[in-house]
Amino acid sequence: MTETAVTDSTTGSADEIVSPPGPHGYSHDKEAHLKRLRRIEGQIRGLQRMVEQDVYCIDILTQVSASTKGLQSFALQLLEEHLRHCVAAAAAGGGPEIDEKVAEATAAIARLLRT
Amino acid sequence: MTETAVTDSTTGSADEIVSPPGPHGYSHDKEAHLKRLRRIEGQIRGLQRMVEQDVYCIDILTQVSASTKGLQSFALQLLEEHLRHCVAAAAAGGGPEIDEKVAEATAAIARLLRT
Amino acid sequence: MTETAVTDSTTGSADEIVSPPGPHGYSHDKEAHLKRLRRIEGQIRGLQRMVEQDVYCIDILTQVSASTKGLQSFALQLLEEHLRHCVAAAAAGGGPEIDEKVAEATAAIARLLRT
Amino acid sequence: MTETAVTDSTTGSADEIVSPPGPHGYSHDKEAHLKRLRRIEGQIRGLQRMVEQDVYCIDILTQVSASTKGLQSFALQLLEEHLRHCVAAAAAGGGPEIDEKVAEATAAIARLLRT
Repeated sequence: MTETAVTDSTTGSADEIVSPPGPHGYSHDKEAHLKRLRRIEGQIRGLQRMVEQDVYCIDILTQVSASTKGLQSFALQLLEEHLRHCVAAAAAGGGPEIDEKVAEATAAIARLLRT
Repeated sequence: MTETAVTDSTTGSADEIVSPPGPHGYSHDKEAHLKRLRRIEGQIRGLQRMVEQDVYCIDILTQVSASTKGLQSFALQLLEEHLRHCVAAAAAGGGPEIDEKVAEATAAIARLLRT
Repeated sequence: MTETAVTDSTTGSADEIVSPPGPHGYSHDKEAHLKRLRRIEGQIRGLQRMVEQDVYCIDILTQVSASTKGLQSFALQLLEEHLRHCVAAAAAGGGPEIDEKVAEATAAIARLLRT
Repeated sequence: MTETAVTDSTTGSADEIVSPPGPHGYSHDKEAHLKRLRRIEGQIRGLQRMVEQDVYCIDILTQVSASTKGLQSFALQLLEEHLRHCVAAAAAGGGPEIDEKVAEATAAIARLLRT
């Protein structure tokens, strides 16, 4: 989690001053993302209630699968926006930055695959 | 989510009346499970803050991978306890129930694999 | 890959002397397993032809997903038979071996999940 | 598997007539890819021998995990090259094609994640 990445001059853009500033590709879908994450948070709290109430193991596992699926859908949407905006911007820029951006995105995909 | 499963006579046991009643295999690890789930809940809230603060996409994806890994570790621990207690109890019982229990556990594993 | 495991006295059975001896749970489905694996082998050879013929990357990735799905279905079927026969036999035996068998099966599931 | 994709005029290029023709991003790594796929093919044949010889289930599952990991590493490498060449080329082109390419790549990643 590099805090510096947030202010990366190549992905942010100074002329988007109006609120919300949103320097990244996913910004215009922010509300949809937050809504999705709040639903997942609710599912995790639901899991805690299930454990507290001694619900049958298999039913808890089903709920875990649903939460994991929710997280992966969120990740895929974020990744699509990242490729469309950040990676495409680096490619359009024409510089050597595209290799770095693609390697970074691929590493993120590998982490998602291996969890 | 079958409510009836909670009171399944083969997995519950009437002589465990003292608190916590815990009819399932995971009951004795309840506190550890709840602690783990609360940490995952915190990670999901962290994801919301990251989206609100326009954190760099890749860093958000890294956090998603960590949360997914947390959920899968929880699932694996639950599954292990389920196999050790519920499935083993069905096997020790010697009746036809073992086939049903194993099919049910395998279906749960398939759901975890395919998310 | 423990060669000794093959002759594990708890999972083999002395009265299955006729050929093929088949000491494990999956033995009676051997032909179905081999057929499935040969199909996957054909898919992997198909992937080689696709690479040789410069087929479009995305189409190759689709074929990789199909092969991976085939491998996972094979693994799930093997796992189900293992739980039904080896793990259940250990549970029915009533000794301490059940814990070891369950830990071993869970570790195998974890490896499948994390690939 | 769209055969048309192979001759897609946007990803192939007519002026690369010299051998190897290789219209796609992965072409220059062709030998490495083929070598990797042949190793996976050998692992799948190894799985068949294991089933024929009644090798212990858990050891077969370990080999399945290794083969799946091999396929996923191959997919990730192909995907990285695809992003670097095809997707970046679409972005540099500046036209609307980038959205289509990114959606297509994301769908492929989703298929890999869900197997």
